[in-house]
Amino acid sequence: MRAATIRDGEVVVEEHADPEPGAGEVLVRVRAAGLNGADLLQKAGGYPAPPGSPADIPGLELAGEVVANGPGATRFAEGDRVMAIVGGGGQAELATVHERQLMPVPANLDWPEAGGVPEVFTTAYDALFTQAGLAAGDRLLVHGAAGGVGTAGVQLGAAAGAHVTATVRNAGSREAVRALGAHEVLDPEGFEEHGPFDVVLELVGAPNVPGDLKALDTGGRIVVIGVGAGFKAEVNLLALMGKRARISASTLRARPLEEKAATARAMERHVLPLLERGVLRVPVAETFALDDVAAAYDRFKAGGKVGKIVVTTG
Amino acid sequence: MRAATIRDGEVVVEEHADPEPGAGEVLVRVRAAGLNGADLLQKAGGYPAPPGSPADIPGLELAGEVVANGPGATRFAEGDRVMAIVGGGGQAELATVHERQLMPVPANLDWPEAGGVPEVFTTAYDALFTQAGLAAGDRLLVHGAAGGVGTAGVQLGAAAGAHVTATVRNAGSREAVRALGAHEVLDPEGFEEHGPFDVVLELVGAPNVPGDLKALDTGGRIVVIGVGAGFKAEVNLLALMGKRARISASTLRARPLEEKAATARAMERHVLPLLERGVLRVPVAETFALDDVAAAYDRFKAGGKVGKIVVTTG
Repeated sequence: MRAATIRDGEVVVEEHADPEPGAGEVLVRVRAAGLNGADLLQKAGGYPAPPGSPADIPGLELAGEVVANGPGATRFAEGDRVMAIVGGGGQAELATVHERQLMPVPANLDWPEAGGVPEVFTTAYDALFTQAGLAAGDRLLVHGAAGGVGTAGVQLGAAAGAHVTATVRNAGSREAVRALGAHEVLDPEGFEEHGPFDVVLELVGAPNVPGDLKALDTGGRIVVIGVGAGFKAEVNLLALMGKRARISASTLRARPLEEKAATARAMERHVLPLLERGVLRVPVAETFALDDVAAAYDRFKAGGKVGKIVVTTG
Repeated sequence: MRAATIRDGEVVVEEHADPEPGAGEVLVRVRAAGLNGADLLQKAGGYPAPPGSPADIPGLELAGEVVANGPGATRFAEGDRVMAIVGGGGQAELATVHERQLMPVPANLDWPEAGGVPEVFTTAYDALFTQAGLAAGDRLLVHGAAGGVGTAGVQLGAAAGAHVTATVRNAGSREAVRALGAHEVLDPEGFEEHGPFDVVLELVGAPNVPGDLKALDTGGRIVVIGVGAGFKAEVNLLALMGKRARISASTLRARPLEEKAATARAMERHVLPLLERGVLRVPVAETFALDDVAAAYDRFKAGGKVGKIVVTTG
């Protein structure tokens, strides 16, 4: 098979041996695979693939058709449209995924949309609901709302009855974020004057944290999922005590199979129905054929997009 | 009535009008009232009493006998032994407390012990279990373990099946902390080499936080309840993400009645039975008569004690 391959800090397309599904695994003919910030980190050498994933093939999510079941795998049949978060290896023509990590693709999603669902919606759902306990009536602040996780977070928050305030650095992206359901879209500068908020989805990083804490209401929760702008945060513990607040942080990639499977079941229960009903959309900023994968990475890095960059594999 | 009274940064004893119980309140003849760090902050002018509490009478907890019920109060009868967290005013001969905040005093506790129960056991229980979800088998680190909340946290952790590591600055206090059930008692220096821990009860403050995070295991929880050593913490958000960890912080005093009542019900359900069975003890370092309240504050401030400083009111 052909696959995006990291070679000396560049992403090229190379031939690899076809992967074979192990016990409980499914071989998937990949049709689309979204890019994520972690791919760029891995490309730069700063985020090696976890054990059990291909060391040199990036890609943390994929959508495609089932080709074959490995020993003991029974959830899906050949030809089923499936999607999943994977530890790596998504940006390839073929990939193996444990069947418990796979989700069915809603019929109304095309391949690029499906390829852009798993990572950002699972991340945003896990952060907002599993970690922060977001509920109807909460006031939610989403930083970096024009990115992949941001657009998912804005939509999930609005769909669950929260009042959603979004910050977007690029003025040209604000209207698109508003169209996704944000009730208020702000320039990041001075955001802390627009609180109080019950939940903050922090996708930018440490420089925002003092303002996040200032803008937080009593009992508020800050969830840190992205630290592109820096990771050394100054936290005023007296303010955190006074607000009886908490800061949590997470990644999906390093989780063990059972936790990833649990997030997939939560997605099937709580998010896929809203995608099927059209309540949630998958904004795809641009698609690139596998042969143009290097351009896809450049486009991702350039920023200023709204939604996902997706690599299609035919 | 006579009461400890804050005057120009000093604690003196003055005459005050007897308080009268309002709707749902109980008038309590105070027999003992523990001191807490917050009393010293309030004495220094840095932590004003919350609305509805006496502005100049310190004391966040008390134990005593019911004198009279206010309109609509029905939980207790005259002469019942009760104890409670209060917003202030505990270090006095009389105090009014909403009946939902009161707890019965276990029969095997004397007055000084009872006066030292509410604040530290409620704080430690709330931090360890309600906030951090401590469970059997967890590895718990308690910083500042010789203090009031520390001794309660060590005992509660051990009673619930956690492996308890305690740090104690004063070498002379370590044996007493070990006797309370700590499996390991350390000098704070280099504590981060003794992990990993699932839960850290941080009673010292910001200087420990980088080490707390370093020593935390995946999925770990840091709960900050005391910041005497400093409140500006540097938090490595990448480490927090990688460990899928969280930092929460809290205080009890500012909570609304319904939350304080909920903590009192949790105490009745989960902590008082262990006090009754003798599984938990209330170490009282020293008692002072109300007339000597200034000396009690000096003793508290001097440190080096194990357990509570309690003011008795006859």
